[in-house]
Amino acid sequence: MDTIIHRKLFQCSLPVLPAIFRHEIVGEVTEIGSKVKKVKIGDKVGVGCLVGSCRQCDECAKNQESYCPKQIISINSRYYDGTVTYGGFSNIMVADEYFIIRWPENLPLDSGAPLLCAGITTYSPLRQFGLDKPGASVGVVGLGGIGHLTVKFAKSFGSRVTVISTSANKKKEAIETFGADEFLVSHDQEQMQAAVGTLDGIIDTVSANHSLLPLINLLKPHGKLILVGIPTELEVPVFPLLLGGKSIVGTASGGVKETQDMLEFAAEHKILPDVEVIPIDYVNTAMERLEKGDVKYRFVIDIGNSLKAE
Amino acid sequence: MDTIIHRKLFQCSLPVLPAIFRHEIVGEVTEIGSKVKKVKIGDKVGVGCLVGSCRQCDECAKNQESYCPKQIISINSRYYDGTVTYGGFSNIMVADEYFIIRWPENLPLDSGAPLLCAGITTYSPLRQFGLDKPGASVGVVGLGGIGHLTVKFAKSFGSRVTVISTSANKKKEAIETFGADEFLVSHDQEQMQAAVGTLDGIIDTVSANHSLLPLINLLKPHGKLILVGIPTELEVPVFPLLLGGKSIVGTASGGVKETQDMLEFAAEHKILPDVEVIPIDYVNTAMERLEKGDVKYRFVIDIGNSLKAE
Repeated sequence: MDTIIHRKLFQCSLPVLPAIFRHEIVGEVTEIGSKVKKVKIGDKVGVGCLVGSCRQCDECAKNQESYCPKQIISINSRYYDGTVTYGGFSNIMVADEYFIIRWPENLPLDSGAPLLCAGITTYSPLRQFGLDKPGASVGVVGLGGIGHLTVKFAKSFGSRVTVISTSANKKKEAIETFGADEFLVSHDQEQMQAAVGTLDGIIDTVSANHSLLPLINLLKPHGKLILVGIPTELEVPVFPLLLGGKSIVGTASGGVKETQDMLEFAAEHKILPDVEVIPIDYVNTAMERLEKGDVKYRFVIDIGNSLKAE
Repeated sequence: MDTIIHRKLFQCSLPVLPAIFRHEIVGEVTEIGSKVKKVKIGDKVGVGCLVGSCRQCDECAKNQESYCPKQIISINSRYYDGTVTYGGFSNIMVADEYFIIRWPENLPLDSGAPLLCAGITTYSPLRQFGLDKPGASVGVVGLGGIGHLTVKFAKSFGSRVTVISTSANKKKEAIETFGADEFLVSHDQEQMQAAVGTLDGIIDTVSANHSLLPLINLLKPHGKLILVGIPTELEVPVFPLLLGGKSIVGTASGGVKETQDMLEFAAEHKILPDVEVIPIDYVNTAMERLEKGDVKYRFVIDIGNSLKAE
């Protein structure tokens, strides 16, 4: 029941060095096991954050494999037999067909690749918490890789979108390019005060430590502050949380079915991350640029052509 | 549309000095306005945390007046005309009939009083987050005034209840008197480890600062840690929150209709807080005992008889 994929393109975003394996993998099927039904040779496919889960627990039963306590992630993890998962930095990849995502015909492989983690990471909570409809007011903290995709998805759902950023110079792009309705500079007290109590939910994409209090204050009663970044130190603003019946929620990517749904939605609504496709030998420069935030908004490494060039 | 209540009993729990007004007020109606329909003279009634709200916002429309941004709390607040709300330390109280809770016939006034805040504070999130049914696993952190009521309500709903406490000597009472199913000593690593991933939700009643990480670990995926205490410094355990799709939720008491429903449920299921009824001149000693945690589990001040004694 395995599918062998000839990996052509691979997306990399985290500044972890040395990094020998990463995720958000796309490519073509070059070989299949005798019982494989989901894909055939020549199909374009993707592999997201997961390559395995127990398939028996409550979470797997609800198609929420990304919350299975025995999930196997695509990189730097181990299959149940002890084999290390190496992700996408290799000329082929073998994957269980269950965790293969079929690639929609009209979705580009290169710029579509980051949808497999960054895309589903924001699509899933927008759907899960009812932030996916006209009338919903969604905040997006941080206009980076996940943030710009959040704006694109939320606008396609018909939601009203407010971008909250430390950088006033991102306003033009947020509103004119991505279609956000409002833009707040987070250190502008007047702007922030005027927006108190206006948002149903906020997707907070920032991994640097920051104060949650001004964000909690932006929420309506029962609003949700949804963390998708990974700061190391965050304080709970207890009293405002209690007074407003508000929540701080963590979410981790999404399940296989939801990832497939997300890709099809993205293809239909022409939602693509903004990417810069690079060859593998550019990766050290890319890492340096990532540290400076100098990328709009994801690097995608073209492994297939990098290998041919050798 | 006002109701005048001759207040007989009044409950006090917070160690705030000097305190001249508090809530959880019960008494009898002695006079009513000409348009009052909800109660008649002689009725037993209660007034909870609220004496007013805007009655126009989304929260009021959903009977969730305790989240109305313009709510007026029973003590130390102001009516829209500027009048201070003085709560229950007086021989009469005037209240808008909308915020009057009708007192069930078979519910004692004295021991029932703390239901008006402590009771609704735990009843509301148990109901709201689906922790009110057989099959639900509920954790209760802290076996004090709100904690012991949480055990009583959750057991009446048919939920499975685990008490988590710093004090091993509360185990006997938690299980034998209140009917909890399990008891965990929070600093016993072995006990805590064995219970990882077993709870659907936790009502955390502790107002002292404490680590949320061991509590988040006790939750199943998508579990909710519900704060009803008011610690000043709590850290968000970000990564475990993300991995499990878990939430930290604040809640603030409940609306008028829900408070009425709660009282009727309590009367039907004979749920009463354990209280010690005291005269007003015992209040300073009571405050000292509260500071030492020396009360099971609430003091109720009998103002009516205290006044007669003078």
